[in-house]
Amino acid sequence: MDLTEVASIIGAEFNGISFEITGLNTLKEASSNEVTFVSNSKYIKDIQNTKAAAVIIDKSLKSHIPQGCAALVVDSPYWSMAVLSKYFSPPIEDDQLPYAEIGEGSRVSPKAEIANGAKIGKNCTILAHVYIGAQTVVGDNTIIYPNVTVYRDCTIGNDCIIHANTTIGSDGFGFATNKLGEHKKIYQNGNVAIEEDVEIGSSTTIDRAVFGTTLIKKGTRIDNLVQVGHNCEIGEYCVMVSQSGLAGSTKLGRNVVMGGQSATAGHLEIAPFNTFAARSGITKSIKESGKTFSGFPLMEHKMWLRLQVKIARLLK
Amino acid sequence: MDLTEVASIIGAEFNGISFEITGLNTLKEASSNEVTFVSNSKYIKDIQNTKAAAVIIDKSLKSHIPQGCAALVVDSPYWSMAVLSKYFSPPIEDDQLPYAEIGEGSRVSPKAEIANGAKIGKNCTILAHVYIGAQTVVGDNTIIYPNVTVYRDCTIGNDCIIHANTTIGSDGFGFATNKLGEHKKIYQNGNVAIEEDVEIGSSTTIDRAVFGTTLIKKGTRIDNLVQVGHNCEIGEYCVMVSQSGLAGSTKLGRNVVMGGQSATAGHLEIAPFNTFAARSGITKSIKESGKTFSGFPLMEHKMWLRLQVKIARLLK
Amino acid sequence: MDLTEVASIIGAEFNGISFEITGLNTLKEASSNEVTFVSNSKYIKDIQNTKAAAVIIDKSLKSHIPQGCAALVVDSPYWSMAVLSKYFSPPIEDDQLPYAEIGEGSRVSPKAEIANGAKIGKNCTILAHVYIGAQTVVGDNTIIYPNVTVYRDCTIGNDCIIHANTTIGSDGFGFATNKLGEHKKIYQNGNVAIEEDVEIGSSTTIDRAVFGTTLIKKGTRIDNLVQVGHNCEIGEYCVMVSQSGLAGSTKLGRNVVMGGQSATAGHLEIAPFNTFAARSGITKSIKESGKTFSGFPLMEHKMWLRLQVKIARLLK
Repeated sequence: MDLTEVASIIGAEFNGISFEITGLNTLKEASSNEVTFVSNSKYIKDIQNTKAAAVIIDKSLKSHIPQGCAALVVDSPYWSMAVLSKYFSPPIEDDQLPYAEIGEGSRVSPKAEIANGAKIGKNCTILAHVYIGAQTVVGDNTIIYPNVTVYRDCTIGNDCIIHANTTIGSDGFGFATNKLGEHKKIYQNGNVAIEEDVEIGSSTTIDRAVFGTTLIKKGTRIDNLVQVGHNCEIGEYCVMVSQSGLAGSTKLGRNVVMGGQSATAGHLEIAPFNTFAARSGITKSIKESGKTFSGFPLMEHKMWLRLQVKIARLLK
Repeated sequence: MDLTEVASIIGAEFNGISFEITGLNTLKEASSNEVTFVSNSKYIKDIQNTKAAAVIIDKSLKSHIPQGCAALVVDSPYWSMAVLSKYFSPPIEDDQLPYAEIGEGSRVSPKAEIANGAKIGKNCTILAHVYIGAQTVVGDNTIIYPNVTVYRDCTIGNDCIIHANTTIGSDGFGFATNKLGEHKKIYQNGNVAIEEDVEIGSSTTIDRAVFGTTLIKKGTRIDNLVQVGHNCEIGEYCVMVSQSGLAGSTKLGRNVVMGGQSATAGHLEIAPFNTFAARSGITKSIKESGKTFSGFPLMEHKMWLRLQVKIARLLK
Repeated sequence: MDLTEVASIIGAEFNGISFEITGLNTLKEASSNEVTFVSNSKYIKDIQNTKAAAVIIDKSLKSHIPQGCAALVVDSPYWSMAVLSKYFSPPIEDDQLPYAEIGEGSRVSPKAEIANGAKIGKNCTILAHVYIGAQTVVGDNTIIYPNVTVYRDCTIGNDCIIHANTTIGSDGFGFATNKLGEHKKIYQNGNVAIEEDVEIGSSTTIDRAVFGTTLIKKGTRIDNLVQVGHNCEIGEYCVMVSQSGLAGSTKLGRNVVMGGQSATAGHLEIAPFNTFAARSGITKSIKESGKTFSGFPLMEHKMWLRLQVKIARLLK
């Protein structure tokens, strides 16, 4: 799709020289063939450094756009970006793609579905009722148990184990909301990448990125019924216990342990080697390493123990 | 089944004129061809207004039954209703029903199972390992990702997206318990109805109603690993974030936002445009609109923030 | 595999008379053809009573081993046990096993996969996209809804109902961690046994035991999105409400009720007829019966109510 067409879809004026636009991306990550957007004045600083071909923007911020970058002025940039995202969404399946490639020594159930364009490595075991989407690549020696769904464009490394009924690459929870309270889906055109030696439990959900990649680094262990939001990054050798969750764009350093039913807010950075007790609620980034935290609001575990003593005294 | 047979199954005496009974229902909703029950004396007022053909009832409450309505007297009405519910449960699949109808332009994977009696609208995408039950109707332009199960008798509107491994229409969590602590299943003979433009994440579970309908209104967005109990009603444009849950029969007004891991008790009514922060625990109905709440027990968010300051002081 | 081979895999010295080893097990449960391990000096007392063929052990504890039992001395017994566990793990599927047996009157979807060596009882209903693993045995009159996965070697009793997208027998969350923070999978070579008349909701996960059996006794009711960790034991007629969880090796007595989003720590014993309110967090064993508890930390429900009054006063 070219830039003139992009402008036309969102009802923005554009009279410059048009060229091919390959996708949408953030202010920071957009390349010179991508379109970006600003929905919040706190990102003003990032506008002038963007390499994007064009920025979908509110009239009031237009002057911050750097030279050589087009301004696509609209009333609600976030809503317009949502409208546009659909046009950059690839088809769910694509019959034109070549048949899936299956590596030597792999055992794939005839009741699994490996979509056109997918690649399975060597010595894998893919059980019945698994779905592997278009262009998804699975490494060697990986085991995928029944009823797992991996959406298109994801990568799963060598020596991974994915347990039954888990979903990898479903759409992140993204939408714009207008003044009437109506929602418009933001198509999630990124993917999920899982490195080597990762084990994931059953009925866990790992959402694809809106742009870019939701990343699970090597050696991480994820239990059952865990939620990983879009654009999260989980470091090496992390542990997420059952029913824990990460909201979107949160990053865990290596060897972080999330206890059962614990959860984080979105957009946090958690330093390596921290442990969160069961049901911790983490709402701020953590810069120190090697500590144990509990509670909601979160505090160091030893403080939480003291607090419980004080609360018990209240009852006397 | 006729009324004499109904009485016989639960061991109640009945000598009146028998006629066809089509199902079970609540005191308020039962029609003149349905049987109802009273298991709790707090519903005495509703007994006299019921239109039911018969009421399964404890001896002590028998006198409240209106004229023209039969009393089926038993020791444990709730248990008897459970026993009876099985007899009104349709078969899971029915080979006598006509082959499923698939609308023009729809792409249905040969590895999906569309049960006899189901109807799929136009331009839908139904991926591998999906199950659509008997008599279930899916609207136009709807996308159902792999490994989704929709039980029989449900309806899904136009322009919906259902992500992988989600279950729609599984049985609500209903049973009677006797004095020995044994449980008897209450068959859930209602359904789920999902209106247009609803998106539901992966591994979410939406239970069918015991009687009537579990209803999700148009434009609502539900994330991954969310629980919606039987007979809930979710208004237009609501948002339920990952790992949140609604217990049975709770109603959300339009544009209610349930934060991550938040939950409600059953049988509540929540006014429109309220927001519940992550991990809120809602145990009472809320009549005011447009507020933000937090905590468990629940309070207004600004009070919760003040409380955290007070608690922090305890530690000094 | 014989004992010499076992020693060689973990790099332990062994010069005794070798014989066939059939598996790994705990100090207490190991038979004279099994190997066990000690990873913690608090189990010293159990060492002298073990019937195991050999104990994987740290040098410092070697002297506690009883006569007739071999010591396999290594630096990190838990890690060595993890390494060894893989060798005792059976293949996921086994084409040499006889075709599955299906009992009279059972209806099995041609789109279900019943692995070789499995047995389905009489009058069962097994819907599309179900997976039943090798050597798994399902009793009579049991209904298994679409997209359920049951791993190998499990047993499901008569008159059970398993709802869609649930997983039974996936691997427990077990691994050893070395000083570098790297994890090594402990293969879960036990199973899950579900007795008669158990109903399990949708997207629930019940993990197989590391050794022995995860056991769900008769008449229990489990809701949607519930987690049951490896080696748990759930008594007769228990109730687990949606989004609740049990960490590994916890035992519930009969008629225990776990409210929505409640959870226990691991290795607890909960006496019969106790009720835990929604979101209770249980971290200690409970010996009294018939009480109602709430909160996290846990307390009797009436105390929790009083605490909320005190906390409300803090705000004035």
